[in-house]
Amino acid sequence: MASTAEPIDFWFDFLSPYGYFASTRIDALAAQHGRSVRWRAFYMRGIMQDKLGQTRPFLEVPLKGDYYKRDVPRMARWFGLPFKSGGLSNFISANACRAFWLIDDLDPVLAKRFAREIFEWHHVRATPPNTPEQIAQAAANVGLDAAQLDIAAAVQQAPAKERLRVETDAAVAAGVWGTPTFVVDGEMFWGADRLNLVDDWLRRGGW
Amino acid sequence: MASTAEPIDFWFDFLSPYGYFASTRIDALAAQHGRSVRWRAFYMRGIMQDKLGQTRPFLEVPLKGDYYKRDVPRMARWFGLPFKSGGLSNFISANACRAFWLIDDLDPVLAKRFAREIFEWHHVRATPPNTPEQIAQAAANVGLDAAQLDIAAAVQQAPAKERLRVETDAAVAAGVWGTPTFVVDGEMFWGADRLNLVDDWLRRGGW
Repeated sequence: MASTAEPIDFWFDFLSPYGYFASTRIDALAAQHGRSVRWRAFYMRGIMQDKLGQTRPFLEVPLKGDYYKRDVPRMARWFGLPFKSGGLSNFISANACRAFWLIDDLDPVLAKRFAREIFEWHHVRATPPNTPEQIAQAAANVGLDAAQLDIAAAVQQAPAKERLRVETDAAVAAGVWGTPTFVVDGEMFWGADRLNLVDDWLRRGGW
Repeated sequence: MASTAEPIDFWFDFLSPYGYFASTRIDALAAQHGRSVRWRAFYMRGIMQDKLGQTRPFLEVPLKGDYYKRDVPRMARWFGLPFKSGGLSNFISANACRAFWLIDDLDPVLAKRFAREIFEWHHVRATPPNTPEQIAQAAANVGLDAAQLDIAAAVQQAPAKERLRVETDAAVAAGVWGTPTFVVDGEMFWGADRLNLVDDWLRRGGW
């Protein structure tokens, strides 16, 4: 199966703790079924406002915001993961998402390591990696050669911005509206709490 | 445990197919842990508009609406349940929800049977039970004695309307914002796809 099957798409924005939770599971889950995973960063804030018409900050929605605040640490415990958030409203993930794609162009394996590092900064160390300098530090931590790519400069330039726009458009074209989202053989699943369904879909070949 | 533990609250609006799916599972799940379930109907449309500020019909939200349309029959297959919907926009569930509480006052066991009947009308037989006459037929089908309660008349009267308002306010006061929602020992879980977490919570006594 591994030889011919398409990779699973893992669409994410670094902003979501559920994306962080899922990022710690999806590769191992896929590997159990002989499948690989393509990590694809997109910019959730753009979709929320422009596509879904959600203009109100998520945490301020009555009831739903309270549920979210209670659910996130509970799900971290359920997954058995360390969790200390930098705060949903303190993190503008655009630079991190742009950097992901620039690194992915060089080395997709390194891009996954970088993504895990970014998730850890924000969701474990409560340090939102907002600035180009923080992005460069995170990239250096996982072994990006600064001589090969000056990432602090690159994320601020037009090609990186355009690249993230293109990838976010691709997410929308694929039907993505939330993070994390998994696409398995054309079938879409939203949410870290649906990894069990992704697993079922792979095991049973759909249902 | 069964003797002292509080019942699990199962909050639902008949409108949601996910509520229908959950209704076929929650009592058996709870029983495995020696727990009972209190079924509590509320009026989701009131909460959506007044509390969550969702003025746009759910199915018309781009991307999200498409996902929902694909996910619902998929989840029906996953649960192994018959499913043929009467259509989200064709069902005004207020009469059914009011009737549920009137019957519950007489006999909570009968109220559950009535609720299952209503779920079946709309989500299996594609027949939205909107009118007082349909409600009365559904109630008669499960054995409500018309001489004991003229439900077609009662659902149109002020006490039934007030009762549903009170119960919907109670849902909001409990933090409910979606259907189905389960509350287990003060811990809230939203969604039929989280029954596995409800099960885990009961098994482990929280985490």
